[in-house]
Amino acid sequence: MRIGVLTSGGDCPGLNAVIRSVVHRAVADHGDEVIGFRDGWKGLLEGDCLKLDLDAVGGILARGGTILGSSRVQPSHLRDGVERAKGHVAELGLDAIIPIGGEGTLKAARLMSDSGLPVVGVPKTIDNDIAVTDVTFGFDTAVGVATEALDRLKTTAESHQRVLVVEVMGRHTGWIALHSGMAAGAHAIVVPERPFDIDELTAVVGERFEAGKRFAIVVAAEGAKPRPGSMEFDEGGKDIYGHERFAGIARQLSVELEQRLGKEARPVILGHVQRGGTPTAYDRVLATRFGWHAVEAVHRGEFGMMTALRGTDIVMVSLAKAVETLKTVPQERYDEAECVL
Amino acid sequence: MRIGVLTSGGDCPGLNAVIRSVVHRAVADHGDEVIGFRDGWKGLLEGDCLKLDLDAVGGILARGGTILGSSRVQPSHLRDGVERAKGHVAELGLDAIIPIGGEGTLKAARLMSDSGLPVVGVPKTIDNDIAVTDVTFGFDTAVGVATEALDRLKTTAESHQRVLVVEVMGRHTGWIALHSGMAAGAHAIVVPERPFDIDELTAVVGERFEAGKRFAIVVAAEGAKPRPGSMEFDEGGKDIYGHERFAGIARQLSVELEQRLGKEARPVILGHVQRGGTPTAYDRVLATRFGWHAVEAVHRGEFGMMTALRGTDIVMVSLAKAVETLKTVPQERYDEAECVL
Amino acid sequence: MRIGVLTSGGDCPGLNAVIRSVVHRAVADHGDEVIGFRDGWKGLLEGDCLKLDLDAVGGILARGGTILGSSRVQPSHLRDGVERAKGHVAELGLDAIIPIGGEGTLKAARLMSDSGLPVVGVPKTIDNDIAVTDVTFGFDTAVGVATEALDRLKTTAESHQRVLVVEVMGRHTGWIALHSGMAAGAHAIVVPERPFDIDELTAVVGERFEAGKRFAIVVAAEGAKPRPGSMEFDEGGKDIYGHERFAGIARQLSVELEQRLGKEARPVILGHVQRGGTPTAYDRVLATRFGWHAVEAVHRGEFGMMTALRGTDIVMVSLAKAVETLKTVPQERYDEAECVL
Amino acid sequence: MRIGVLTSGGDCPGLNAVIRSVVHRAVADHGDEVIGFRDGWKGLLEGDCLKLDLDAVGGILARGGTILGSSRVQPSHLRDGVERAKGHVAELGLDAIIPIGGEGTLKAARLMSDSGLPVVGVPKTIDNDIAVTDVTFGFDTAVGVATEALDRLKTTAESHQRVLVVEVMGRHTGWIALHSGMAAGAHAIVVPERPFDIDELTAVVGERFEAGKRFAIVVAAEGAKPRPGSMEFDEGGKDIYGHERFAGIARQLSVELEQRLGKEARPVILGHVQRGGTPTAYDRVLATRFGWHAVEAVHRGEFGMMTALRGTDIVMVSLAKAVETLKTVPQERYDEAECVL
Repeated sequence: MRIGVLTSGGDCPGLNAVIRSVVHRAVADHGDEVIGFRDGWKGLLEGDCLKLDLDAVGGILARGGTILGSSRVQPSHLRDGVERAKGHVAELGLDAIIPIGGEGTLKAARLMSDSGLPVVGVPKTIDNDIAVTDVTFGFDTAVGVATEALDRLKTTAESHQRVLVVEVMGRHTGWIALHSGMAAGAHAIVVPERPFDIDELTAVVGERFEAGKRFAIVVAAEGAKPRPGSMEFDEGGKDIYGHERFAGIARQLSVELEQRLGKEARPVILGHVQRGGTPTAYDRVLATRFGWHAVEAVHRGEFGMMTALRGTDIVMVSLAKAVETLKTVPQERYDEAECVL
Repeated sequence: MRIGVLTSGGDCPGLNAVIRSVVHRAVADHGDEVIGFRDGWKGLLEGDCLKLDLDAVGGILARGGTILGSSRVQPSHLRDGVERAKGHVAELGLDAIIPIGGEGTLKAARLMSDSGLPVVGVPKTIDNDIAVTDVTFGFDTAVGVATEALDRLKTTAESHQRVLVVEVMGRHTGWIALHSGMAAGAHAIVVPERPFDIDELTAVVGERFEAGKRFAIVVAAEGAKPRPGSMEFDEGGKDIYGHERFAGIARQLSVELEQRLGKEARPVILGHVQRGGTPTAYDRVLATRFGWHAVEAVHRGEFGMMTALRGTDIVMVSLAKAVETLKTVPQERYDEAECVL
Repeated sequence: MRIGVLTSGGDCPGLNAVIRSVVHRAVADHGDEVIGFRDGWKGLLEGDCLKLDLDAVGGILARGGTILGSSRVQPSHLRDGVERAKGHVAELGLDAIIPIGGEGTLKAARLMSDSGLPVVGVPKTIDNDIAVTDVTFGFDTAVGVATEALDRLKTTAESHQRVLVVEVMGRHTGWIALHSGMAAGAHAIVVPERPFDIDELTAVVGERFEAGKRFAIVVAAEGAKPRPGSMEFDEGGKDIYGHERFAGIARQLSVELEQRLGKEARPVILGHVQRGGTPTAYDRVLATRFGWHAVEAVHRGEFGMMTALRGTDIVMVSLAKAVETLKTVPQERYDEAECVL
Repeated sequence: MRIGVLTSGGDCPGLNAVIRSVVHRAVADHGDEVIGFRDGWKGLLEGDCLKLDLDAVGGILARGGTILGSSRVQPSHLRDGVERAKGHVAELGLDAIIPIGGEGTLKAARLMSDSGLPVVGVPKTIDNDIAVTDVTFGFDTAVGVATEALDRLKTTAESHQRVLVVEVMGRHTGWIALHSGMAAGAHAIVVPERPFDIDELTAVVGERFEAGKRFAIVVAAEGAKPRPGSMEFDEGGKDIYGHERFAGIARQLSVELEQRLGKEARPVILGHVQRGGTPTAYDRVLATRFGWHAVEAVHRGEFGMMTALRGTDIVMVSLAKAVETLKTVPQERYDEAECVL
C-alpha cells in the first residue's frame, strides 16, 4: 500500500514519534510505501511531498517539532481545496492519508473523509480538549513543563513574599491549569470553563496570608475570565494604533490582586515553552501506539476514523464523533483539586 | 472521624502526595483527624504514630520518599499481628485505616479487612503489576527515569560502537522495560513474561550491525530469563562462601552477546535510581486523586476496597479482586512494541 | 564563637547551600554557635533571629529559596539602621556577621564593616555581575533553566516558522543572555552593554530566512535597548492611569521584527522561573565552598572581606573592591559568541 | 586554510559543540575549509574523512556523542602510524589538525606535533584529570547526572533505612565523586588518591545511625581502594574460567559495610549514563569557546598547543606540559568537603 502522512497545526511533543511509528509499522512490517507531505495540508494541496523510509525517521523519536513541518493551512481555505487534495492523492496513487493534528485538523480530516478520501486521523493536542480519547500525546509534556516551572517559582514566591500569577496554556479548557496546578500544589486555579469571581479569588489568597503563609501561587489558564462585572477586564487584541496590547489574564490578575491584597503580585507567562521540545516517555509511548494503530486501521480499511486511548487500549472512533464537542473539565475534577474557583 | 494512614513496602514516588491529599481532604474539608503510623504496618503493630495536621504535610507534594517511613513488616509476620493491630485501632479510636502499598501490603490490607477492620487501600507500585487499576503512581516516574538514562546511553553506545544491555526494574513483569524501551527506541526488549531465545536475540542485534548500524540497545527487565537450555544462566544468590554473586541478567547477557557477536557489549544496571526522588506531574496528580477518593470512600463506609484508575476515573474495587492476579504485559502490547522477543 | 548569618535580596539557587555549609563548618567542626536572622537585614535590624543547629539545616542543600527568608530592606533605609544593627550584634554577643547577597547587600555589608562590625560577605547573584569573583552561585542554574527553555522553544519556532524573541534576566548586564544564547545556539543576542541597531538585527534575522531557514531565535537580556533613534522604544513603567504597561524588550522587538520582516514573531518572557528552584550541582558546590571559606575567614579574623572564586580557588577579596564596579561582558566574549549585536 | 578535525577516546558531552564551533569559526568567519576524520585517529590513519560545512553541523550543539565517531586507535598503535598520518595530511593539503580528546589523545597529539605536524589540541575528559586547564567540558554534565541520581537515591535509602554505596566514574581521580558527593550531601566519599581505611569508613557511617539517622550515602569513585590490609579487596578482572568477575568497589564495600554495621547496604553503579547525552549549558559554552579559540590558534600559527580554561579566560598551553601529570584532587578540596576519607 501507499500511505500519505502529514502533521498540521501547532507544535506538539510527540509528532515525530507518530511519524516514526507509522513508517516503522508500514514500511518495515507491511512492506508499504510512506509519503510525507510538507507543512501539513499545504503539502497535500500543493503536492509537496517526500518519500519516508526507515532512515528518514532515524533518531527522531525523542525530538520535538516535526520533520515534516506544519502550517495552519486547511483544505477549506481554498475553494477547490478538497478537489486539489483528491487530485494529488490520485496522482500519487495513495491508498490512505493519515493526518496528525488537533481539532481543526480533525475537522478537515472529516471533511476529506466525507468527500470520499480514505482517511485515518491521529489526534494531537497539548490542551487535552479532544473528546472521545482519554488523553492525547503532548498534554503530558506540557503539564510536566508547567509543573517544573511552578516548582521553581514556589521558592521565589516564598523568598520574595509574593503572589505569583502563572499563566499556562488553555484558551478554551483548563486541563493544563488543573493538572499542573494540582501537581505543584497551587493555591488557586482559574479556568475558562468557569468564569471566576475576583472577590472569591481575593479571599482565597488573602486567607493564606492571614494564616501566616508568606506567598501564594495562582495558576491561570490563558482563556480564564472573570465573571462579567466582577472586575475590569481587557480581552486583549490591538490598541487604537494597531499595536498588540499584550494584556492577558495573568498580568491583569496580578495588578488586581496587588491592589486588593496590598501584597506584591507578579505575572509569569510560561508561553510556548509548554509546547515544544523533547516529549516525556508517556507521550512517546502514546504517540508510538497511535502511529502503529493508525497503520493497522488503514490495512483493515477502517476509514473516517481516528485513534483514541480508552483506559489502556487504543481504539478507533469515528471522526464525526471526535469533532462534535470540546472536552472540558468535568465538575468532579474541580472538586478533587479543591483549589479551582 | 479519625483516620489512620500508613505507607508500606519499597520506596515509590508519590507516597507523600497521597499522604498530603488524605490529610487535606480529611482535615481541611471534613474536619477529620488523621493519624500517621511510622514505618508501615510496624507502626500499627507497635502503636507508633503521630498526628498529621496540615502543617505536617506542608511542602511534601513533590518530595520523594515518605514522611511516615516504611518497612516490609506485615501483620502476618507476627502470630498475634492482626489482634495487635485491632487493639491499637480500638485504643486510638480510629474509624478507618488507609494503607498505601503494593501487592504485599494490599494482601495484608485484605487480611485486616476480612478480620473486621475498616480498611480502604491505596495501590502503589513502580512495577505497574497490580491488576484492576489501569496504572498506579510511581510507574510513570520510574519509566521517565529509565527513559532519560536510555536517551543518554544511546550516544555513548554509538560513540563506542557497542551493545549496551540496560537492566531496568521488573522482577515479575516487563512493564518498565516495555515502556522505557518503546520510549527510547530500544532495539530489543526482554521481559519476565516471555523467556527469550538467545539465538533469536543475537540475530536481532546482529542484523543491526550487518545493516551498518554502529550500536544496539537491549533493555532487560531484571526478571527476564532465557528459555531453558537456551544459554547458561545463573539465577544469582550467594556463592559457596556466602558472598552475593551479583550476577544479574544484564551482566550475563552482555558477556554472552559479546562472545556471540564479536562486538563489545557492556551491562548497565539502573537500579534504585528508578524508585526514588521527585515524582512526575502525572504521578503527583494520580497520587493526589487516590488520596482524595480514599477519604471519600471512608466517609461513604466503603471498606474492603481500594482506589483504582479506570480510564480517567477513579473507582473503588474490592481488595479481594485486586490481589487475585498479577497484571502481566498482554500479547498485543508486545506486538505494538515490535522489539520484544 | 557566635556567628550571625542572613540572606538578603532576590531569590537565588544556592542560598540554602551556603547557610547549611556555614552551619556545618562552624557548628560541627569549630564548635561555634550560629544565629540566623530572618528576612535579611530586616532580621538584624529588628533582632528577629533563631538558632541554627545541624538539624535546622538538614535536607536543605538541594532546595531553592532560603530557610531564613529574605527582603530588600537595608540598614541604610533607617536613619539609625547601623546603630540598631550594632546594638543587636552586641546584645547577642556575635563575633561575626555573614551576610549573603548581591550588589546592594554587599554595599550594605561594606557600610556595616566600615562602621566597625566584623563582617564577612558571601556574594550572590544570578546575573553574574559582581566584579572580583569569576562567578557566583545562582548564575549556572539561571543559565541552565534559560537554555532548557531555549532548547524547547527551537522546535516550536521551527514548526511554526517563526521568529521567537526570548527575554532572559539581566537588567544591567548580558551574562545570562550571552551564556544561554551560546549554549542554545541562538541566532542573535542583544544585551544592555551594547545598544543594538534594529536595522542590523533585522538584517541578521532576515538573512537566515533568505538562506532558506525556517525560524530564528533572538535572545534579549531584559535590559537590552535599541541604539537611540534606531526604533521607537518604550522604557516601560506605568501608563497615565497608573497601570503597569508591561512593555518589555521582547514584546517590542517581536512587534518590530514582525513588521520589518513580514514573518510571524512572538515574545517569550522567561521571568522568575530563572531564579528559583533546585540549584545545579555546580552552584551547590560553589555555594558550599563559599560558606566553608566564610567561616574560615571569620576564624582568621579577616573582616571587611568577601569570598570569591578565582580559577578553581576560593580567595578573599575586600568588600570595598567588590562593590566598585559592575562586571559587564567584555568585548572578547561577544566576539566568541559571534551572534551578539 | 584547510583544517582537519577529529574526536578520539570515550564519549563526552560537548564533543559535537566543539566540532560545530570549529566549523562555524573556520568556515563562516575565516572562509576556511574543514575536513572531519571518522572515528578519531583511525580516520586520519586511513584517510577516511568528509567535508564539514555549516549544514553538516546544523542542530548538533545540544546532542551527545560525536557526529564524527570515535575510537581508541592511536597513531602509535601502528609502526608507521605517524608517517601514514603525515601522508594523509599532505595529500589532503591540510594546514592544521585539531584533535579533540583526553589524556591519550593529547599524548598522541604531542607525538604528532613533535614529528612536525601542525597540531592544536582540544582537551576533553569527563574525569577532569587533565592538568593545566581549570576544567574541561564533559565534567559538569557527568557531575550533574551523578548528582541527580544521588538526589533520587537519598529518598530511597531513607525509606528503606539502608546504606547505599554509589559508584561514580573516576578510575584515577576522585573529581566526579568529590563534586557530586558535595552537591548531593553524601555522608562519606572515597577516592583513588587516598586509599581509605575501612574501619574509619565504618565508624563514620555507624555514627550516623547511632545519632538516629535512618540512612547513609557513600559515594565511591570507581578507582577507590582500601588501604592495603584494611579489608579483603578484589581488583576485578576475569575469573579462572575467563568470565568477567564484575567485582567493583561499590559491591565489595556494600557487602563489607552490611556485615560490619548490621544494616542493609546496597551498591548502585551509575556507569555509562554519566558520559553520554545532552551536555549542560556550562559544557556547551566551554566546548564552543574551545573550538573558537582552537581555530584562532591555527590562524596565528600557534601549534603544539592546546586550549585551556584559566579562570574565565581561554588560553593556550603547550601540549608537552598538558600531558606531564594527571590532575588529582588537592588536599584542601578534601578538607572543604569534610566527608572525604
